[in-house]
Amino acid sequence: MRISVPATSANLGPGFDTLGIALDIRNEVIIKPAKFHSVSLKGEGSNNPKLKDNNMFISTFNDFHQNLCSQRQQFRFEFQNKVPLSRGLGSSSAVIISAIASAYAIEKIDIPSKKLLNLALSYESHPDNITPAVMGGFTVATIHDNEVFFIKKNMPKTLKAVVVIPNRPISTNHSRKTLPFKYSKEDTIFNVSHSSLLTAAFMSEDWRMLKKASKDRLHQYYRMKQMPELFAVQKVALRNGALMSTLSGSGSTFFNIVYEKDANRLVKKFEENFPHFKVLQSDFDNDGVIVED
Amino acid sequence: MRISVPATSANLGPGFDTLGIALDIRNEVIIKPAKFHSVSLKGEGSNNPKLKDNNMFISTFNDFHQNLCSQRQQFRFEFQNKVPLSRGLGSSSAVIISAIASAYAIEKIDIPSKKLLNLALSYESHPDNITPAVMGGFTVATIHDNEVFFIKKNMPKTLKAVVVIPNRPISTNHSRKTLPFKYSKEDTIFNVSHSSLLTAAFMSEDWRMLKKASKDRLHQYYRMKQMPELFAVQKVALRNGALMSTLSGSGSTFFNIVYEKDANRLVKKFEENFPHFKVLQSDFDNDGVIVED
Repeated sequence: MRISVPATSANLGPGFDTLGIALDIRNEVIIKPAKFHSVSLKGEGSNNPKLKDNNMFISTFNDFHQNLCSQRQQFRFEFQNKVPLSRGLGSSSAVIISAIASAYAIEKIDIPSKKLLNLALSYESHPDNITPAVMGGFTVATIHDNEVFFIKKNMPKTLKAVVVIPNRPISTNHSRKTLPFKYSKEDTIFNVSHSSLLTAAFMSEDWRMLKKASKDRLHQYYRMKQMPELFAVQKVALRNGALMSTLSGSGSTFFNIVYEKDANRLVKKFEENFPHFKVLQSDFDNDGVIVED
Repeated sequence: MRISVPATSANLGPGFDTLGIALDIRNEVIIKPAKFHSVSLKGEGSNNPKLKDNNMFISTFNDFHQNLCSQRQQFRFEFQNKVPLSRGLGSSSAVIISAIASAYAIEKIDIPSKKLLNLALSYESHPDNITPAVMGGFTVATIHDNEVFFIKKNMPKTLKAVVVIPNRPISTNHSRKTLPFKYSKEDTIFNVSHSSLLTAAFMSEDWRMLKKASKDRLHQYYRMKQMPELFAVQKVALRNGALMSTLSGSGSTFFNIVYEKDANRLVKKFEENFPHFKVLQSDFDNDGVIVED
């Protein structure tokens, strides 16, 4: 059995804990019944032997699998990870989603997307990464009584994502602590209106609106101050064809949308200006989690 | 020449100073060149003789007309007003928009919608009523450097608006003063996510999402406390088929969306429960300002 889940970029500027989008950069795991438990790990994280032993995927998988299956079973897990760790591209959401989906799939129990999302919510308290990881596409999500409510829109092939991945993380915990506890009415209304306009722009494919609508006053500045090169990344992006350029989740990756024709040029500009950062170009993903027998 | 402009309901719950929608309840003015200045006023406000003499329409019209026309001219103005005054249904936005549009139309100068909006912005500092008044439909708007940026979506005929208009106003100034100066991070994110989800629901016509998505934590409670019957109005609405039920602008009107088939029943329920309030049912308007020769 093969399960794959896409990387995701959350917030998209003003849509704090709300907006997210899925990228065609996927983590994959192949699971086979076996006599003994074993794990192989390739790609992102494979140079860290701790990850193999203390594996969040396997502990989450076991949490669910032992509830679904009375017999004790052993498996071989073969991970092929492409989502960078701790860089704001939803790697932990990808792990949680794929672990829960795998536990159900291995027992041949159908799990509706909405249920998968709500189960994932007990591991991830915000819906902005898990929703696009499950559904693909651009998503708007909120939570009522521990339930995710969301709307999804597919992304067209004519747009590409370009992500700039710094050589070090911003800690999510530290990053959240740097944010204000309260916001002025003006800043609050600023983000309400920008996140709403950005949502309307994605829903109506009005791409010219992305640049203005993606401005934020609630979190990006406070987080970017911890890695000031990110201000330069954003400037280079917006001067070289990016339709929008926002911090991915709580960082440190910067997420950019470009027309297909402008993607290579933007990648080259980033590589010239930030030689120690990794630059990836990808399609958007509209599938979300994929389970294959 | 005949100019008409629709009533509008702003905020729509979480979309503070951002979201708005146009109703097919219109103010109309007929303007004819004449030897002497004269005014007739029918409908809303006609029982108030002060409105005829100290007319915001005429002063705004004159501001623009004297800049567009070198000659001094006199007109007869015949107003037929259906938008209730000072009840949160955009009557002042309607006056400003129709006055500016009239000044241009009488000189046969085309004015693009975007320019009309930006001129209106110097009289109304928020874009949430003027945008649907000019454009019609459901609108999402924000301001950058004194310019309105917006996206519009037409409303279908299968939905109706039902508005409950109290017998007294809530003062807009007083109403704004009762609001907090600062908001917690939680309340801020609540409205960012709900306004965004509500926007996505309108854009994708996912009407089942309206009830959850239209919740607000920034302004309605503080304003409704000044007229506690409004909590009862909202409760009656949501128990009797309303897809959403929100304070209209800063009140005192309550705005409700229903499926066409449920409209009469909801009107009746409101009339039974709130006999001293006025209840109107209307289509949504997708035209905005209309100028006819």
